[in-house]
Amino acid sequence: MVNWFWRRRPPARVLRLRSRGELSDARRVDFAELAPDVSTFLGQAAYLQLGYFETLGRLVRATPGLGEKEAISLAAGRALAKHRQLVDLIRDRVGDPTDAMEPFREQLDEFRGKTIGARPRETMLAVHITAGMLDDFYLALSSGYGEVGRRVERILGESSDREQIEEILGETISSDEEWRDLLSMWARRLVGDTLLVARSALVPERLATDEKRIEPVFTALMAAHSRRMDELGLNS
Amino acid sequence: MVNWFWRRRPPARVLRLRSRGELSDARRVDFAELAPDVSTFLGQAAYLQLGYFETLGRLVRATPGLGEKEAISLAAGRALAKHRQLVDLIRDRVGDPTDAMEPFREQLDEFRGKTIGARPRETMLAVHITAGMLDDFYLALSSGYGEVGRRVERILGESSDREQIEEILGETISSDEEWRDLLSMWARRLVGDTLLVARSALVPERLATDEKRIEPVFTALMAAHSRRMDELGLNS
Repeated sequence: MVNWFWRRRPPARVLRLRSRGELSDARRVDFAELAPDVSTFLGQAAYLQLGYFETLGRLVRATPGLGEKEAISLAAGRALAKHRQLVDLIRDRVGDPTDAMEPFREQLDEFRGKTIGARPRETMLAVHITAGMLDDFYLALSSGYGEVGRRVERILGESSDREQIEEILGETISSDEEWRDLLSMWARRLVGDTLLVARSALVPERLATDEKRIEPVFTALMAAHSRRMDELGLNS
Repeated sequence: MVNWFWRRRPPARVLRLRSRGELSDARRVDFAELAPDVSTFLGQAAYLQLGYFETLGRLVRATPGLGEKEAISLAAGRALAKHRQLVDLIRDRVGDPTDAMEPFREQLDEFRGKTIGARPRETMLAVHITAGMLDDFYLALSSGYGEVGRRVERILGESSDREQIEEILGETISSDEEWRDLLSMWARRLVGDTLLVARSALVPERLATDEKRIEPVFTALMAAHSRRMDELGLNS
């Protein structure tokens, strides 16, 4: 259906979305106009973190080695902490957190279902790839929400402690060509769904007429994604 | 095999093991002699918290309602935080946390398997009951380890944020006689295994000759357990 984000050019420079300054002011203003109301924004961001926690928790249990268990549980704990901080922020500024998250449950649960691979390594890569993109996306969106946005920026800007997961994945990929091919393919498959989730977070009426406004943001997301793939030794 | 802990008398007073002062000095000294080496003590305590986290994480996923998800994830996050604090303490004082936990993995995984019920409510009760007893037990043991023990006491003495889980269970039990009977029976079944885990944490050579020394501690554990059951409205 939407294939506009596949029109990917090799980026002139790699935009890291982690820090606001790196999106130009013009882009930021345009982007903010597409931003949904604050309850939608926070509800989705909070529910996504809960989803990472659930997926990582599942991985902790599926992983026999204690060292890997520790690495994954560290990231699971961070996702949960971010979720709880976002829930507190919702309670503080918007109202009932459950009400704010409920409308996105079905869609995000379905998305999360697609990130569960046949093998734990696939699921691990899925969290790294999808959370990497969506955290970038919500960080970029946060500039549209004043003080609340700055609080989101602080919460999502904190470390997600996924470095050890990246290391584990990197070792698997560098030691085995078959794994490298399998995981490259798996990551490619996830990108489309992840971008759809990001896109669906935006105001649909505006999106229909302002398709072009959003493109630079998605180009930047894709560039950051390619960098993440490179760092893992995967073909993007 | 061991049925000594079933010789339960109605306790003259309910001993809450949460605070050290409530075990008499004499009991504390006797008990300390049965305490295992510090690596065993910390390894078990840390691995148990990881197990609660894994079980609660599984429950978060199995629970459709967002309100309940929040309640359970709060407790899951606390268990993980305690696990990580204990892991840090092991790294600080004993050595590699994985090495310290590894020897107890099989036994504690098997125990954890028994706490997974056919229905989520059973599993939820299992965590409340078994973690309640074992946290009490490790708190009582901690007095035998000087400064390290005081740090364990601080870690395990912090809230486990299981109050909301207790509320959910209480509502289920008070609203449905069949649930009450089912959960009463389930809890009774768990107590034996939980006491075996506690018992197996102690030094076996000493235990053989000093059976009587440990009895008051287990009487206190059972009294605290009965109180927990009463508070939930279950028949102990």
